[in-house]
Amino acid sequence: MTKFLFTAMTTTPEGALKHIGGGSLLIAWQLDGKRVLIVGGGVVASQRIESILTTDASIFLLAPSDGLIARTRRLIELYPDHVSHLDRTFSGPEEIHNMDMVLTAIDDAEKSRQIVLMCRAAKIPVNAADIPDLCDFYFGSQIRDGPLQIMVSTNGKGPKLTALIKNRVQESLAGVEGDAIMKVGALRKKLKERAPGIGGPIGQQRMKWMSAVCEQWKMTEFTQLDEEMIEKLLDEGWNKKRVPTIEEVGGYRLYAEDGASFPLNVGLSSIIAFCAGAIVTVSVFILRQRR
Amino acid sequence: MTKFLFTAMTTTPEGALKHIGGGSLLIAWQLDGKRVLIVGGGVVASQRIESILTTDASIFLLAPSDGLIARTRRLIELYPDHVSHLDRTFSGPEEIHNMDMVLTAIDDAEKSRQIVLMCRAAKIPVNAADIPDLCDFYFGSQIRDGPLQIMVSTNGKGPKLTALIKNRVQESLAGVEGDAIMKVGALRKKLKERAPGIGGPIGQQRMKWMSAVCEQWKMTEFTQLDEEMIEKLLDEGWNKKRVPTIEEVGGYRLYAEDGASFPLNVGLSSIIAFCAGAIVTVSVFILRQRR
Repeated sequence: MTKFLFTAMTTTPEGALKHIGGGSLLIAWQLDGKRVLIVGGGVVASQRIESILTTDASIFLLAPSDGLIARTRRLIELYPDHVSHLDRTFSGPEEIHNMDMVLTAIDDAEKSRQIVLMCRAAKIPVNAADIPDLCDFYFGSQIRDGPLQIMVSTNGKGPKLTALIKNRVQESLAGVEGDAIMKVGALRKKLKERAPGIGGPIGQQRMKWMSAVCEQWKMTEFTQLDEEMIEKLLDEGWNKKRVPTIEEVGGYRLYAEDGASFPLNVGLSSIIAFCAGAIVTVSVFILRQRR
Repeated sequence: MTKFLFTAMTTTPEGALKHIGGGSLLIAWQLDGKRVLIVGGGVVASQRIESILTTDASIFLLAPSDGLIARTRRLIELYPDHVSHLDRTFSGPEEIHNMDMVLTAIDDAEKSRQIVLMCRAAKIPVNAADIPDLCDFYFGSQIRDGPLQIMVSTNGKGPKLTALIKNRVQESLAGVEGDAIMKVGALRKKLKERAPGIGGPIGQQRMKWMSAVCEQWKMTEFTQLDEEMIEKLLDEGWNKKRVPTIEEVGGYRLYAEDGASFPLNVGLSSIIAFCAGAIVTVSVFILRQRR
């Protein structure tokens, strides 16, 4: 049960830190109930709207109507509760008043720079499209499956390759991760109700037990959890300081989740190999009979 | 050549946006030359130091010496140019003065809350360990290969599962991505020198051509690029509005990069299937001869 934590703790800083410096800090910014200003109406502006729609922010799109591409227009129409269109060009510092984040997506680099300076003075996080030097943060390519979010960033060095790497990452997922995370979240919440308190020994005990469960259970097993099974898992597991199997709490074990637990990964190549084996053997027989 | 862009542009917002709301905005925060205050000296504080060491920020670790765990102490010793130890407890608002980011990693939730409120008033981005409601942003599990950074976030719902998903993502990478991105970055830089200008038609032309190259070249092909080959690629490609092959610029084509371009993925299961085919055929012959 302690194996997981033990491993994590005994890795030396020398060994763990292969890459010092030069990178960004990848973070999940919280925008629930916040106000985001997007300046511009073109392709990049439409991408920015889509990125922010992932969150629960209020989006303000500042651009004259005749500067909107079809996609931006469509997004404004589709999500009136999320996107407000301000039909004008950027007029001055009052535009960023009360904003929690500002994204410029205009071709005018000098205007972008002016907006960035205003934001910097007001300590509002800002991103200026295509001018990395002016950005507080960069965007990356994103994958989402419910509560699971994955970001691929090349730190502005290869925006096109990120899409390719993103596809590769997406293919590596089983598709059940989002569901499994939600069930683990529900389990964690119930555990906190049963053993409340922030930090300290109780927090560490909770973390250790959750780690052990996550290490021993398969992703697909978590997706089976319902309220009753969660209670049983806490009764038989947390209360008894152990990790029950999925069967013990009323679920069933699945095989072949990711090939590793299934004895034979039968694919097209295996079928071809089987036929090849048969053909070679038949050929040997025929050749021997001809002699 | 325009296929890639065409596909990206014609996806409808309705189809592309499967997940509206409820998520975070995953971003790559820039900390080059910035000052980050970490309050605490325990396990979480040591993880925070490691996260920030990825960047070029100056780290200030605020914690009394007797509250430092061995790993935190070791990080302070190993990276004196990056980490300054402030040997005291958090004393008041002057501690966050001139800081660009603050991370609390202490067991005292009330003190954490006070620090967060000070940061909020001063508009300094802040994260309070184990108190998601107080955080401007969350951390996630990270992968790094040079300029490539990948973050896996479960939005605080399953911190332990992120490690598992991270491992799966890591296994999906070929290990050449970081190198390939650096080469693409060098190509992009040379292209910008040849065809300068921010935004506008020239910027779009550059983006289109880079997209086409990234789509048609394999990851391992990019790793071969040197300065001479980059010049040749721009001469034969950008200047002639086309995408040359790797052979045309003096490189060689590789197969089996990720299995997809290799005709048969011969694994253990294929060998077993081959033998099975042979055995079944022999059995059929023997049974027929016995009759």
